[in-house]
Amino acid sequence: MGTRTVDLRSDTVTKPTEAMRAAMSAAEVDDDVLGTDPTAFRLESEVARMLGKEAGLFVPSGTMSNLISVLVHCDIRGSEVILGDNSHIHIYENGGISTIGGVHPRPVRNNEDGTMDIGLIEAAIRDPKGELVYPTTRLICLENSHGNTGGRCLPVEYIDKVGELAKRHGLKLHIDGARIFNASVALGVPVNRLVQPADSVSVCLSKGLGAPVGSVIVGSKTFIAKARRLRKTLGGGMRQVGFICAAALVALQENLGKLEHDHMNAKVLAEGLNQIEGFRVNLAAVETNIIFFDIVEGSKITAAELYKHLAEHGVLVMPEGPSRMRIVLHHQISSSDVQYTLSCFQQAFTGLQEENGN
Amino acid sequence: MGTRTVDLRSDTVTKPTEAMRAAMSAAEVDDDVLGTDPTAFRLESEVARMLGKEAGLFVPSGTMSNLISVLVHCDIRGSEVILGDNSHIHIYENGGISTIGGVHPRPVRNNEDGTMDIGLIEAAIRDPKGELVYPTTRLICLENSHGNTGGRCLPVEYIDKVGELAKRHGLKLHIDGARIFNASVALGVPVNRLVQPADSVSVCLSKGLGAPVGSVIVGSKTFIAKARRLRKTLGGGMRQVGFICAAALVALQENLGKLEHDHMNAKVLAEGLNQIEGFRVNLAAVETNIIFFDIVEGSKITAAELYKHLAEHGVLVMPEGPSRMRIVLHHQISSSDVQYTLSCFQQAFTGLQEENGN
Amino acid sequence: MGTRTVDLRSDTVTKPTEAMRAAMSAAEVDDDVLGTDPTAFRLESEVARMLGKEAGLFVPSGTMSNLISVLVHCDIRGSEVILGDNSHIHIYENGGISTIGGVHPRPVRNNEDGTMDIGLIEAAIRDPKGELVYPTTRLICLENSHGNTGGRCLPVEYIDKVGELAKRHGLKLHIDGARIFNASVALGVPVNRLVQPADSVSVCLSKGLGAPVGSVIVGSKTFIAKARRLRKTLGGGMRQVGFICAAALVALQENLGKLEHDHMNAKVLAEGLNQIEGFRVNLAAVETNIIFFDIVEGSKITAAELYKHLAEHGVLVMPEGPSRMRIVLHHQISSSDVQYTLSCFQQAFTGLQEENGN
Amino acid sequence: MGTRTVDLRSDTVTKPTEAMRAAMSAAEVDDDVLGTDPTAFRLESEVARMLGKEAGLFVPSGTMSNLISVLVHCDIRGSEVILGDNSHIHIYENGGISTIGGVHPRPVRNNEDGTMDIGLIEAAIRDPKGELVYPTTRLICLENSHGNTGGRCLPVEYIDKVGELAKRHGLKLHIDGARIFNASVALGVPVNRLVQPADSVSVCLSKGLGAPVGSVIVGSKTFIAKARRLRKTLGGGMRQVGFICAAALVALQENLGKLEHDHMNAKVLAEGLNQIEGFRVNLAAVETNIIFFDIVEGSKITAAELYKHLAEHGVLVMPEGPSRMRIVLHHQISSSDVQYTLSCFQQAFTGLQEENGN
Repeated sequence: MGTRTVDLRSDTVTKPTEAMRAAMSAAEVDDDVLGTDPTAFRLESEVARMLGKEAGLFVPSGTMSNLISVLVHCDIRGSEVILGDNSHIHIYENGGISTIGGVHPRPVRNNEDGTMDIGLIEAAIRDPKGELVYPTTRLICLENSHGNTGGRCLPVEYIDKVGELAKRHGLKLHIDGARIFNASVALGVPVNRLVQPADSVSVCLSKGLGAPVGSVIVGSKTFIAKARRLRKTLGGGMRQVGFICAAALVALQENLGKLEHDHMNAKVLAEGLNQIEGFRVNLAAVETNIIFFDIVEGSKITAAELYKHLAEHGVLVMPEGPSRMRIVLHHQISSSDVQYTLSCFQQAFTGLQEENGN
Repeated sequence: MGTRTVDLRSDTVTKPTEAMRAAMSAAEVDDDVLGTDPTAFRLESEVARMLGKEAGLFVPSGTMSNLISVLVHCDIRGSEVILGDNSHIHIYENGGISTIGGVHPRPVRNNEDGTMDIGLIEAAIRDPKGELVYPTTRLICLENSHGNTGGRCLPVEYIDKVGELAKRHGLKLHIDGARIFNASVALGVPVNRLVQPADSVSVCLSKGLGAPVGSVIVGSKTFIAKARRLRKTLGGGMRQVGFICAAALVALQENLGKLEHDHMNAKVLAEGLNQIEGFRVNLAAVETNIIFFDIVEGSKITAAELYKHLAEHGVLVMPEGPSRMRIVLHHQISSSDVQYTLSCFQQAFTGLQEENGN
Repeated sequence: MGTRTVDLRSDTVTKPTEAMRAAMSAAEVDDDVLGTDPTAFRLESEVARMLGKEAGLFVPSGTMSNLISVLVHCDIRGSEVILGDNSHIHIYENGGISTIGGVHPRPVRNNEDGTMDIGLIEAAIRDPKGELVYPTTRLICLENSHGNTGGRCLPVEYIDKVGELAKRHGLKLHIDGARIFNASVALGVPVNRLVQPADSVSVCLSKGLGAPVGSVIVGSKTFIAKARRLRKTLGGGMRQVGFICAAALVALQENLGKLEHDHMNAKVLAEGLNQIEGFRVNLAAVETNIIFFDIVEGSKITAAELYKHLAEHGVLVMPEGPSRMRIVLHHQISSSDVQYTLSCFQQAFTGLQEENGN
Repeated sequence: MGTRTVDLRSDTVTKPTEAMRAAMSAAEVDDDVLGTDPTAFRLESEVARMLGKEAGLFVPSGTMSNLISVLVHCDIRGSEVILGDNSHIHIYENGGISTIGGVHPRPVRNNEDGTMDIGLIEAAIRDPKGELVYPTTRLICLENSHGNTGGRCLPVEYIDKVGELAKRHGLKLHIDGARIFNASVALGVPVNRLVQPADSVSVCLSKGLGAPVGSVIVGSKTFIAKARRLRKTLGGGMRQVGFICAAALVALQENLGKLEHDHMNAKVLAEGLNQIEGFRVNLAAVETNIIFFDIVEGSKITAAELYKHLAEHGVLVMPEGPSRMRIVLHHQISSSDVQYTLSCFQQAFTGLQEENGN
């Protein structure tokens, strides 16, 4: 059991499958910067079709997909974007929309379910003909599923309402859909319906879908043409990129159907953790493949200590603060891994309590 | 009475006094871009001395004083600033720190008294050696008095605590002191003591102090040297600027002592307004020279309507939304103006109620 | 004679006249940020009328007038501006168009007369539908008179040709007209005709015209509306700015007619300097109020030494490198000052030669 | 012969070899954003070792490698970079250093051999303690081999001199070494010696070396740590990126030795083209794998026409203007391809001359 590894730090850690490796090895490729890589084109078209948008663009990462999307919608100096104060773009992307793109963020409070109150969004919109002292609101960003609230899903009705609000004020709507397929599966809503009001969506291929690398932006042809130019500026244009795209095409086929299983595993694991004395999980928040759990106050152990002890048993989780940890399920975590993980937690916790003199 | 004007829109609307005009007319001036205007130097030194800092720099506006301060402290790409989500810099300065300066704002919730919880500030600080996905926090901004909460004052103990926090994390502290003299007077704390922990302070001369134009930034000599260079970049370097500085020097002498009277006037006016049926003022919030008041729901008149009717009687106030208005006192509003204003409000309100069929 | 000062460093060093001081003292002013200062409006309208454009905007400096003009024309991310490699914007404005505005400069070689070859300009234009690796050219900048070539004037035919080129390629044309009135006078072409093809012109009031502070941007109403917003962002919006504008209005009346005299003085001074052994002036380049002169190689004195000795006699000039100096004439330099200056140069030079053992 | 394709547009168009595909298929990979991909680490270390620098960083493209390098060296607002006016960074990278990075370029004239005169470089350096109106020079960029002059090589003595100049003025030196191995081979100077004075070098793997994707930046550990953070900001951090790195490792082994052959092919092709009436090649400029050739004036055919006719015979070249074309050799062009290409040119040219009535 000493060498067993259960890597629950993120759904980005998956190892490519044999089918992906085979597809990469056999991929038809060409110079994508010159616009002629057939496999990149196939992937971009396929994701665009799935999301119900005109066109797609492959980019190296989710960060770049969001950065490009925000910057293209906000391509005029003096633009402001309304986004969640707990969103990935605001918290985990180096502030790139400002530090690289000069876009001013206007964060609105994220509720525990990942939504922002419609009224608060509307109140944050600046009238472009208004005060001389205001930047011009050009974009609203949503995130679905919402990572920092534990992978909770924005329902289609909510997204539609935000879409209507955006349209009424002449704003664009971008959805950070790094885990949009998880949301679609959990909500039971077709993914193209879920993003229908969006002017652009970024989709990660290397998270739940298990591809080794990359993200796809989808939107109108005009939007994607601008995105392609900005991708070049940022240095995201790659030459024979079809290799990576070939693996991603396999990922779409192989793993889309497995997301439901990841969600089930997450529920089992969350419930199990919550039953261990000393841990607390907000079970209602576990809607997809992410679990946040807290060490109950008074437990006399820190997340860092727990993390270390788990690591010795091959279980890797992500510290999120002094007493909070994150677990992410993915297609390479089996039901057996879940049981093993639970037993490690139980042992580790009991052991640590004793060590610390409880 | 038809031509009487009581301009309460802002404390920026004051007309220069005869003494200021005389000082301007007689000012000794030279080319300040070449560094030799004696009157500019005198003003900068005087404000620096009053605030207890090494050096000062005259700039055309409060917006530029904040923009330069934030940008100098955050002169390395990838910087983040922690500031109030209801602060002037975040709301009323065109997002310039991002759109011009590429600095990423990390807004923290402003309480009703203009403070941010110390715990929330600390939680928002990013460890510079930390995650690859974080911008680097370099600055905390406070605003005192805090305009958007109605001119409330941050107490010296609070500022000291934020200063200690900043120091502990290696951060700089900037105070937007557009109305720092109002805060000093209201709190009864010497202004140099009030800003003691700050690395930089911006002070407006054309608000409560009644100078026609300008703002002064104060800080260390090194900081001001960088600020001077950036002022040139932004186009804020002016030639024979001593004229304006001469008026500001008079303003410091003439009007500093009148701030207390403005605050008294504000209290009288606020209490009077609150007694008129149909208006509501949070009296506890009226600490300095600003009053926010709301038209009570069900009054069937809008702020815009009221604004128009007041204007016909020469009383100018600032609309702040569908049912909210702002009044700002200054040295050119007398006690008699306050009484006149109250009577206009009473009349206007009664009249409007009748017109609208109440 | 010991206290006589002849300040030839720049035409920015002039002291305001009594008439300007009187006008400032009597100026009707209001809050220009709120858009109601009548004197600012009068100055802006007057300069716009003189230049033959729809509207004007007062700004604190020539640097800000150019910065705003370039940034408004290039308000979309990814813009490129074609400008002279020896132009004021490229060399003397801190690179602000890039460091503050994110605009990419594409410098084209300035000829000795301040022009850029039309063919080189055209070759530098990027097709907006072209290569994915190109920024988009949006603006051409000219400078007239051209300071760094010694105040030489671009003829109207040249400007017209550049205007046609710009129009043909859908580009805007900005003229840095810091000294456009000098060019107009020297060329004998009405100033509105001279800038006819320009979409925007920046005009300095505190150079040859002798106003204490400021610059005016002129252009279409739409352009000026955007410029006004950006002026606020940069912090160039000032409150009771009418004082400064009042002085500038006087400057327009008093000094426009004196520019011709400045040019004559420049010619006399240039010829006189050129006759002193050890100095060399390119007389053909002295078209307006600026003289560049070189200390002939082998003279064994440096510009710095000469500068010092002149300063002791109250003659101030601007060093421009190890053996080059600049002189600028203005309305406060009389014909007698010119003669005095020449005699000081002659003495200083002879004396220094002796001191250095020649 | 109809289906034979000889793609000479660029050395980026090579198709991955079987060995590369096999290496990709077998690559050991992990999450490189979490810092644990062993193959990425191996490639980065290997390239750093070859170039004689402390550390390396894999990035998606040459554009990103230059963008990151310039931005890290110029991480303080107000920075200026001296670079060739005909350099890849200035001409072909979307102006990203300004439009994304806010760095001000100060282009210096590139000579026909890709150098800039040392004197001109020195004259362009701004003293950081100097004029308030200057940006601060922080970086000099060289490009070796220099693409836009036809792949000419900067000799080691020249680079050393620029390095000394940079050091003397406290500046950094970056070498855009997209084709540094071509330069090393052509000059007969070990690559680590060639870049010895450089603080950073960007190396393309997908040009002459024939890897499908990517570039490596090398420099000090401190520099690379900053580069890694900026790579994340730009969205260049990729997850299981080891696949691509595995192919690049093969490319280093397979193709480094073939560059000399590419250079020989270039010479043969250049001489052959030059002998065809109607073409002109500057043979002296063909030092590596790039050929620029012009259609002689009076030939009555355009590059576009020629391009089309060649394409019908499977020969792809890159148009560079109305009468100029570019050819780039690479490891997938054989000596036989060169002869075939020459015969196509001869035919195409003769045929076109006839068609056009010569």
